[in-house]
Amino acid sequence: MKTRAAVAWEAKKPLTIETIDLEGPKPGEVLVEVMATGICHTDAYTLSGLDSEGKFPAILGHEGAGIVREVGAGVTTLKPGDHVIPLYTPECRNCKSCLSRRTNLCTAIRATQGQGVMPDGTSRFRCDSTGASPGANTVYHYMGCSTFSNFTVLPEIALAKVREDAPFDKICYIGCGVTTGIGAVIYTAKVWPGANVVVFGLGGIGLNVLQGARMVGADKIIGVDINPDKRAMAEKFGMTHFINPNEVGSDKVVQAILDVTGGGADFSFDCTGNVNVMRQALECCHRGWGESIIIGVAEAGREISTRPFQLVTGRVWKGSAFGGARGRTDVPKIVDWYMEGKINIDDLITHTMPLEDINHGFDLMHEGKSIRSVVVY
Amino acid sequence: MKTRAAVAWEAKKPLTIETIDLEGPKPGEVLVEVMATGICHTDAYTLSGLDSEGKFPAILGHEGAGIVREVGAGVTTLKPGDHVIPLYTPECRNCKSCLSRRTNLCTAIRATQGQGVMPDGTSRFRCDSTGASPGANTVYHYMGCSTFSNFTVLPEIALAKVREDAPFDKICYIGCGVTTGIGAVIYTAKVWPGANVVVFGLGGIGLNVLQGARMVGADKIIGVDINPDKRAMAEKFGMTHFINPNEVGSDKVVQAILDVTGGGADFSFDCTGNVNVMRQALECCHRGWGESIIIGVAEAGREISTRPFQLVTGRVWKGSAFGGARGRTDVPKIVDWYMEGKINIDDLITHTMPLEDINHGFDLMHEGKSIRSVVVY
Repeated sequence: MKTRAAVAWEAKKPLTIETIDLEGPKPGEVLVEVMATGICHTDAYTLSGLDSEGKFPAILGHEGAGIVREVGAGVTTLKPGDHVIPLYTPECRNCKSCLSRRTNLCTAIRATQGQGVMPDGTSRFRCDSTGASPGANTVYHYMGCSTFSNFTVLPEIALAKVREDAPFDKICYIGCGVTTGIGAVIYTAKVWPGANVVVFGLGGIGLNVLQGARMVGADKIIGVDINPDKRAMAEKFGMTHFINPNEVGSDKVVQAILDVTGGGADFSFDCTGNVNVMRQALECCHRGWGESIIIGVAEAGREISTRPFQLVTGRVWKGSAFGGARGRTDVPKIVDWYMEGKINIDDLITHTMPLEDINHGFDLMHEGKSIRSVVVY
Repeated sequence: MKTRAAVAWEAKKPLTIETIDLEGPKPGEVLVEVMATGICHTDAYTLSGLDSEGKFPAILGHEGAGIVREVGAGVTTLKPGDHVIPLYTPECRNCKSCLSRRTNLCTAIRATQGQGVMPDGTSRFRCDSTGASPGANTVYHYMGCSTFSNFTVLPEIALAKVREDAPFDKICYIGCGVTTGIGAVIYTAKVWPGANVVVFGLGGIGLNVLQGARMVGADKIIGVDINPDKRAMAEKFGMTHFINPNEVGSDKVVQAILDVTGGGADFSFDCTGNVNVMRQALECCHRGWGESIIIGVAEAGREISTRPFQLVTGRVWKGSAFGGARGRTDVPKIVDWYMEGKINIDDLITHTMPLEDINHGFDLMHEGKSIRSVVVY
């Protein structure tokens, strides 16, 4: 079949809207009509060329929501008409990781997904347009999702079935940012009621960490950001205290947090990707039990450091990917929470646009003018 | 009263045996006759002058066992004749840390203990001998214990009451090394039956980690050490696989562990204090859930580093002090385990000596000729 998609022909170039040949679903695969997709920093990171796994030409996008239109042979858990959220972290429920009950990082299709192809080793996308890569007609998948295409194909294990009354242009954000932030609080950190929480970086992920902390009954919820303009929105999402490193001095942030919390954070979250901030996030944790969770993606080659004494005296350093959420099991619950009003997504979707304007969506993000831009097909 | 003690007059000098004036127990304090004490690397570290908290002159020693001889006013949980193990990590059961139920790092007397004095701010030790510090007659406490004195005074909260049939010259080792190693497995890591465990450094702590892992039913128990002579003893304490970095190449240790474990360790323990080894210990952990526990004390100023991706993909970095054990609650249980034959201490006590030979005990340790030397009074 034919579909419209935004193609990334090579790093650092704007996407172009193309007509793509899409091969229908093979066994175990599902054809999805993408109804909406968010534009995430990870798409921009890959487009920047810094992502060593980035493969071009590709159809980017990994934060979508849509409707099943066709299922391949052997697909048993989905049928045409089902509403779904694509999962860049699938959940096969049969691999060593899924069976460990200790991680969400399913490894069933990890190798092929990283190579931009489906589990059988081939791509479903082909484009004969004239692009910047002349002669290349295979277009690669991206993070197993490629939601910047109106239609896409995914493995059955990479789709979360969700309720049908949820609006696509909001719940698409659960496909990445919302789950990454809220899940880090609930599934990775297991923040308890009454805990003191610190969030470094008040962008989209940070705001979702804030509202996750509020949802589970955290006590003090401290936001740290160098941009004071983020304060109002952060307070709306649950922040109780704001610390601006440019005001207190970046070398005094840890002490400021120790003061506010009376000894240190029970949990801290890095949502910046800055390795120096990650260190502060660890060192502001309470002696004896404070846990710091890294969510932000650091630049390639950068490393985190601390004195081992920080850990020997009881602090714990961990990380979170996709919020520690099991995609097929937990994502539908988060959709329910949104529909029940427990979490706020509407205020985070600051811009919507047609696919033709997707490069503008990237521009808004780079300029810090959006929290989340969503493409509606 | 008078007591015999080994005094550290200043860094890098041998201890001298002195007659010390010991003030009896004040309210909340207990006079203990030390019957035996181990000589630990931490004593040597302080004596080397590298310990920034080290205060001289002091009576070192923190790994003892003895008998209560007198109790101060208000002491309710101990009486003369009770057998006890001094605790450099006390357990008051009333401070924020004890009440958190999340750490063993009681803070009730932390400040004064770090200053070498009792909770009231004064020392019980005085020495009018001619020492290297002429005129100084106050001698400081060390780690709240000072077990290199035949008699010493401790706060009630810093004494674990233990059974009376346990031999002092063995259970003194539970006052530090045994609990640090076994506790890290049981209380900090909570190693589960069937887990794959890696232990870096097969000295006294490493051997206790090994036997802790065996005790809780770990599956593969891999020891890593550059000294092949440690292999036989390590196997006796539960090691199932041995990796010598000098044989496989130190840059291939992580891969060797991934191969043996089929993907990585469920738990790793650093017992070396070497920050480069600490990094290997983290990075040999299984993606998704592997936890690395730092036990070793690094040189002042040294830092640990890794790429944050290691944590984001599910590895956890933590540390352990005194094995995460609550002294008054857990130490008596470990004494029971020894008496029941669940753990082996006898083979770890390689040398015993009178107090007069204590400097020889330090020499044996520095020369790598002992696992643990014990002074018997």
